[in-house]
Amino acid sequence: MQYKAIKLVKRPGTQITPDVFETVMLETPELAADEILVRQTHMSLDPAMKGWMSRDKDSYIPRVELGAIMRSSGVGEIVESRNDDYPVGAMVGGLLGWTEYYVGNGKGLRILPPGLSPEEVLCVLALPGLTAYQGLVEIGKPKTGETLFVSGAAGSVGAIVGQIGKAEGLRVIGTAGSDDKCRWLEDELGFDKAINYKSDNLVEQITEAAPDGVDIYFENTGGPVQHVVFWRMNAHGRIIVCGMIADYNTDQPGPGPNWLNVIRKRLTIQGFTMPDHWDNIPKMTEALVAYYKAGQIKYRAHTLQGLESAIEGINLLFTGANTGKLMVEL
Amino acid sequence: MQYKAIKLVKRPGTQITPDVFETVMLETPELAADEILVRQTHMSLDPAMKGWMSRDKDSYIPRVELGAIMRSSGVGEIVESRNDDYPVGAMVGGLLGWTEYYVGNGKGLRILPPGLSPEEVLCVLALPGLTAYQGLVEIGKPKTGETLFVSGAAGSVGAIVGQIGKAEGLRVIGTAGSDDKCRWLEDELGFDKAINYKSDNLVEQITEAAPDGVDIYFENTGGPVQHVVFWRMNAHGRIIVCGMIADYNTDQPGPGPNWLNVIRKRLTIQGFTMPDHWDNIPKMTEALVAYYKAGQIKYRAHTLQGLESAIEGINLLFTGANTGKLMVEL
Repeated sequence: MQYKAIKLVKRPGTQITPDVFETVMLETPELAADEILVRQTHMSLDPAMKGWMSRDKDSYIPRVELGAIMRSSGVGEIVESRNDDYPVGAMVGGLLGWTEYYVGNGKGLRILPPGLSPEEVLCVLALPGLTAYQGLVEIGKPKTGETLFVSGAAGSVGAIVGQIGKAEGLRVIGTAGSDDKCRWLEDELGFDKAINYKSDNLVEQITEAAPDGVDIYFENTGGPVQHVVFWRMNAHGRIIVCGMIADYNTDQPGPGPNWLNVIRKRLTIQGFTMPDHWDNIPKMTEALVAYYKAGQIKYRAHTLQGLESAIEGINLLFTGANTGKLMVEL
Repeated sequence: MQYKAIKLVKRPGTQITPDVFETVMLETPELAADEILVRQTHMSLDPAMKGWMSRDKDSYIPRVELGAIMRSSGVGEIVESRNDDYPVGAMVGGLLGWTEYYVGNGKGLRILPPGLSPEEVLCVLALPGLTAYQGLVEIGKPKTGETLFVSGAAGSVGAIVGQIGKAEGLRVIGTAGSDDKCRWLEDELGFDKAINYKSDNLVEQITEAAPDGVDIYFENTGGPVQHVVFWRMNAHGRIIVCGMIADYNTDQPGPGPNWLNVIRKRLTIQGFTMPDHWDNIPKMTEALVAYYKAGQIKYRAHTLQGLESAIEGINLLFTGANTGKLMVEL
C-alpha cells in the first residue's frame, strides 16, 4: 500500500520555508518479527519542532537528520501487528512523525487509555499536557494561594498550566496575543486575569493584576513580558523556563534580565525539556486524566486537514495565528 | 568608659562617600540583666554592605536605618557579662557592627570554636566561608570530576569556593582582576587555572581552560565573564548567583543572558543570601573547620588599622584593590 510522508531535506533559517520539506510516496513493507503498522489519524504540531530541525547539533534531543522523516508526536491505530505488546485495533501515541503510516517495533509508543478521542489525547495527554504538568507541578511545586504568571497562556502548554494552577488553588494570570484569546482564558478556562501582551500599558496591567507580586512564573515566550514579570517576582519565587517562542525565529535573541534580582529575591530559574522526564509519564498521565475527568482541563483545538497542510501550517505557531492546540487530521 | 562607633547617616548613591557615615563617641552603660559587653578586635568588611546601606527597602535583609550603627560582622572578646550563656573571656562572632564595643543580650552571636585566631575566624568561618559552603556544597551539589567556574575567585568568598571545589575533587577555574591574584590562586590555592578578566582574549582563555564546558558556575561578579561562561554551561549545569559586584556601583545594571540556553541545557540558576540559612551554621562551621585543619583552605588577609579606616576602606572592595579578605583591626 502506498502512503505519503514528509522528509526534512534542508535546515531552516530564521523562518521555516516550504523548501526545507519534501513529500515522498512510500510503500508499506512486509512486517518483520516484532513490527507493527500504525495508521496515524492525528499529528501534533508544536513549537519545539523548530529546535529539532535547526542547525544546532548540541541540543537536548538529537536533531532530525536531513533526509529523515520529520519528527512529531501523534495518535494512530494499529492496523497490522507482529508484536504481542501492540495488538491490532489499539490506539497508540508517541513520536510517529510526519507520515500517514508508521512502521517499526513500537519502541517509545504507548497504548492510550481507553475512552479518549485522538483530539483529547493530543490536547490533554500529549507533549503539551505532560510539559505543563512536569513544569508547574514537579518543578514549580505550587502552594495553594500563590500567584502564578503564565506567558503564552493561550498556547497548548500555557492553557493547561493555567488550568492546573486553578485546580491547585493558585491565583492565575496569563498573557496572550489577542483579546479573543484573553476572553477565552478568563471566560472558559477560569484564569483570574488574562492580558493582551500587545497592549500599550503592559506594565500597568501586569502590576495591577499581581498586586502582591508573582510566586511562580511559567515562561513560554520570552520577549517584553519577561522583563516586566521578572522584576515583580516575590522572595523565593520560581521561574520555570519552558519556551522562548519570541526568540525562536530571530537571529539575535534579546537580552535577559540582570541577575541582581536573582540574589535579592533568592529566585530559582530552571529550564527543562521533556526527554529528561519520560520516566515520569505514567504518573503524569494519571494526574492529567484525573484533572480532565473532573472537568478541570478544557481545550480548544485548531485542526488542519491532510498531511501536507503541516508544511505551511507549522508557521501558525510562530505568528500566534493558531486559535488552539495545532494539529493535523490525516 | 568611652568608645567610638560609626553610624550610617545618609544613603549612598552609586559610590560610598565618607559623608554617609558619622563617627560618634558613646559611653558603655551599666549592664542590664542578660546583657554582655564585647570588645570587638576584628571587624569584617564585605561587599554585601553596599546593599544593606542602600535605598532599597525591599531586599533580603532589613536595610540599616539612618542613625543606626553600621552593620558588619566581627569577632570580639566578652569583657563583662550578666548572661550565663556568654562567659567573660569567651570569643564571640556575629553582627557586632562598626563599633569598638558591643552591648546587648548576645542574640545572634555565637561562641567561637577554641584554637582559632580572630583572623582565621573572619577569613574561614565568618560570612564568606559560610557563603562559600552554602552556595557550592548545599546548592551546587558538586560531583567529583565536574568543572567549577568561579568569578571573583580572589575575593573572600570566591577563594574559599575554589578551595572547597578542589577538596571535593573538581576541576576549578577562576577569574580575578590582576595577574598577581591569578598567580596566588594557581600557586598557593591550587586552582587548575586562573584568568585575569581584564585580558583581551577572555573568550579564548575561558574556552581553552574549560574544553569540556562548565558544570557549576559560582557567580560573584556579573560583567563580561558571565556571558562567556553562560554559553559554555553543560547540560544540567547549576549556576549559583551569590554576587554581582560589577553592578553594585552602577545605576544601569547590564543585561543578563538570554534564557534560550536555560532551556537547551536545562540549567538551574539559583540566587541565595545567608540570612535564609542561619540554621545551617553549626553544620557549616564544622565542615569549614575540618577543611581548614586538613590544610585545604588557605587565605590572605588585608587588614586595615582602627575603626575609622573602614570609612574609606570599604571602597577597596568595589575597585578590587584589596589584596585579601578585607578587615579592620581595632
